[in-house]
Amino acid sequence: MEKDPMLRLRVFDLNCWAICYLSKRRQERIGLIGDQLCREGFDLVLLQEIWSECDYSDLKAKLGGCCPFSHYFRSGVIGSGLCVFSKFPILDTLLYQYSLNGYPYMLQHGDWFCGKSVGLVIVRIAEITVNIYITHMHAEYSREKDAYLPHRVVQAWELAQFIRHTAKAADVVLLGGDLNMHPGDVGIRLLRSWTGLRDAFTEAQHFEGCEDGCTLIPSNCFTVKSELQSFPLGIRIDYILYKAVSSFTVECEELRTTTGTVPGLDIPYSDHEAVMAVLCIQRRQQTDNVTIDAAMPALVEVLSEARTEVCVGLLAARQQRYSSGRMAVLAMLLLLLQAVGVLGMLGGVAAGQPFPALSVSLLAFFALAILLFAAGLHLFHSIEVKMLQGTEEQMEMAMRGLQEQP
Amino acid sequence: MEKDPMLRLRVFDLNCWAICYLSKRRQERIGLIGDQLCREGFDLVLLQEIWSECDYSDLKAKLGGCCPFSHYFRSGVIGSGLCVFSKFPILDTLLYQYSLNGYPYMLQHGDWFCGKSVGLVIVRIAEITVNIYITHMHAEYSREKDAYLPHRVVQAWELAQFIRHTAKAADVVLLGGDLNMHPGDVGIRLLRSWTGLRDAFTEAQHFEGCEDGCTLIPSNCFTVKSELQSFPLGIRIDYILYKAVSSFTVECEELRTTTGTVPGLDIPYSDHEAVMAVLCIQRRQQTDNVTIDAAMPALVEVLSEARTEVCVGLLAARQQRYSSGRMAVLAMLLLLLQAVGVLGMLGGVAAGQPFPALSVSLLAFFALAILLFAAGLHLFHSIEVKMLQGTEEQMEMAMRGLQEQP
Repeated sequence: MEKDPMLRLRVFDLNCWAICYLSKRRQERIGLIGDQLCREGFDLVLLQEIWSECDYSDLKAKLGGCCPFSHYFRSGVIGSGLCVFSKFPILDTLLYQYSLNGYPYMLQHGDWFCGKSVGLVIVRIAEITVNIYITHMHAEYSREKDAYLPHRVVQAWELAQFIRHTAKAADVVLLGGDLNMHPGDVGIRLLRSWTGLRDAFTEAQHFEGCEDGCTLIPSNCFTVKSELQSFPLGIRIDYILYKAVSSFTVECEELRTTTGTVPGLDIPYSDHEAVMAVLCIQRRQQTDNVTIDAAMPALVEVLSEARTEVCVGLLAARQQRYSSGRMAVLAMLLLLLQAVGVLGMLGGVAAGQPFPALSVSLLAFFALAILLFAAGLHLFHSIEVKMLQGTEEQMEMAMRGLQEQP
Repeated sequence: MEKDPMLRLRVFDLNCWAICYLSKRRQERIGLIGDQLCREGFDLVLLQEIWSECDYSDLKAKLGGCCPFSHYFRSGVIGSGLCVFSKFPILDTLLYQYSLNGYPYMLQHGDWFCGKSVGLVIVRIAEITVNIYITHMHAEYSREKDAYLPHRVVQAWELAQFIRHTAKAADVVLLGGDLNMHPGDVGIRLLRSWTGLRDAFTEAQHFEGCEDGCTLIPSNCFTVKSELQSFPLGIRIDYILYKAVSSFTVECEELRTTTGTVPGLDIPYSDHEAVMAVLCIQRRQQTDNVTIDAAMPALVEVLSEARTEVCVGLLAARQQRYSSGRMAVLAMLLLLLQAVGVLGMLGGVAAGQPFPALSVSLLAFFALAILLFAAGLHLFHSIEVKMLQGTEEQMEMAMRGLQEQP
């Protein structure tokens, strides 16, 4: 086979854990990350959890020499936290915000406020169009009782669909980010099989770093040890995935991760480990055979599994919509009852004043507060039901399409 | 030039005004629309404002013979109201919800609750891949003082970007829907120039229907006459737009609109007029020259105009974010003051009881209610600022890209 000269692309991906006022030694670590990136001179840098625009500006100033082009994706209340630095000019960008992303009333899990999204950045390197996707999915706060699993499966489906629909003119597709999923989880299997993306860790010709490619490890001083109790080696939730779409091949020559503390210092760059890949891109005469047809039965199986998770979420969301609706109706009845009582009192129907005014007014405000809260919940869970239903239907359509294919 | 046989595509588009409990004679009109569609046998039917799933199911049952394939897009609290019926199998779908869509507290303008979106449906007709987009944008409630203009411009930009990024492998692109913009408005000029879409009304070889192609006309008994006072002929806000992407040509052979009442009856199908187009699609040897480069200076100009509107919106959103934040802080101070007073009373610092308990508790609840409301507003306007900033940056990047091109 005739081959053109090879393009070597060096990619860096890290969840930087840079939450203002909450993340430990944030500015110091951002400084260290910037220094490291300048030293190593990557072609593409994909960062998550850069919540503060000041941190982004600092990095932009520092990386001006090696990665002069960059984009910061804005969404949600706090921001998406996603940014991309590139050695090559950025031609275009697009942001897709996931339709489901946790619950606004779960204040201790701030995911809803970040407007979790997938960002697309298009660059052209030596006549090769590269679509670079960066994302950060909803966190998994409890593996045993993961209330957010249906939302994460919806996010994985939307991510896969977004990539499929926007990458049709790309030569190479690259996805980096904190997917908050273990390698065998249904969401990542769905994403990989539905898009044909390959995992840099499993494909790498040479690997160096944490055992099993873990990116959340117990020896990192910032990780919450209790969360990793069942996983003594740690877990792998940060990924670099890639594929060639048209007449190109992509191979992962090398994959590295950081391994806790920065060499010579007492702190790591983040509570996650960075993932660094060297990808070799080459044009070839025949078109690439990376199609999803290859593993049709497996694809139908994973789609069916994902659809089951969405259906489980749909049942729960319907139940919550019903409960909150009932609570709102009860609060409204209580308010009506009190209004009737007060009117009765004013009209002189009641002989005396059975309740003191203070209790009546407190109760009324209590009922009003519950009414407002329950109505808000009802609205929110109505949206959740709509989006889960929509996803379930799309998955069903995809399965039907696959099964009808000759 | 050598030409392949022609494909004639008959497209129907209508905003059906089918709001449960609110729209007049809804079920009767849905029945009439279904009958008309069955009679005429269109290839593609794009409907908006089908809010009730029952109405969708009724139409689906009725159109089973002529348009056996369909998709209903779900989003928001109420739903997107968008659905597509097709004579040809639907291969894939995708929904993109606009990041800005009015305000949840503007209950009288229900747009926020609909989760206004653009839906994509892909069909393949005789080896031709057709990307069909359907949308319904934020309404314009006052032309003189249009508070939603920045949101609509953001929607137009997101719609254009979504089409550009997802239509790269399509042969023909078709967009239908209620854009809530007059033909000369900045949003539609942005959409058309940034995507290269052509307006079926201006391109049609033969036109039949309301003067100037208006789709909201005074003679329709359901339109609000006061809204059309400055436009005696009516306004044109419903569109069918199209373009050929690859080696195809598309021509609009015929365009028709309905003209008020259904022939032989006393009511129209909706408060909008339907738009019906016959499009002729033909393969040709040379690739089509529909590129956006042709009118570069005009494109930069319209981008700059749109960016100005977004900046105006950004200023207003920042002001609202500041005001709501200040209101929340004041409410919190009032609560603190009362808490100090109550503690003082309990500690016996105050000689007597200067205020009755009822007034104190009422005031506390009042302050709490304001605090919650203002905090909600602050969150919402923070999201608005983020999205307007993001759009402004994207537009700036696009302009820079255009100006840097040789």
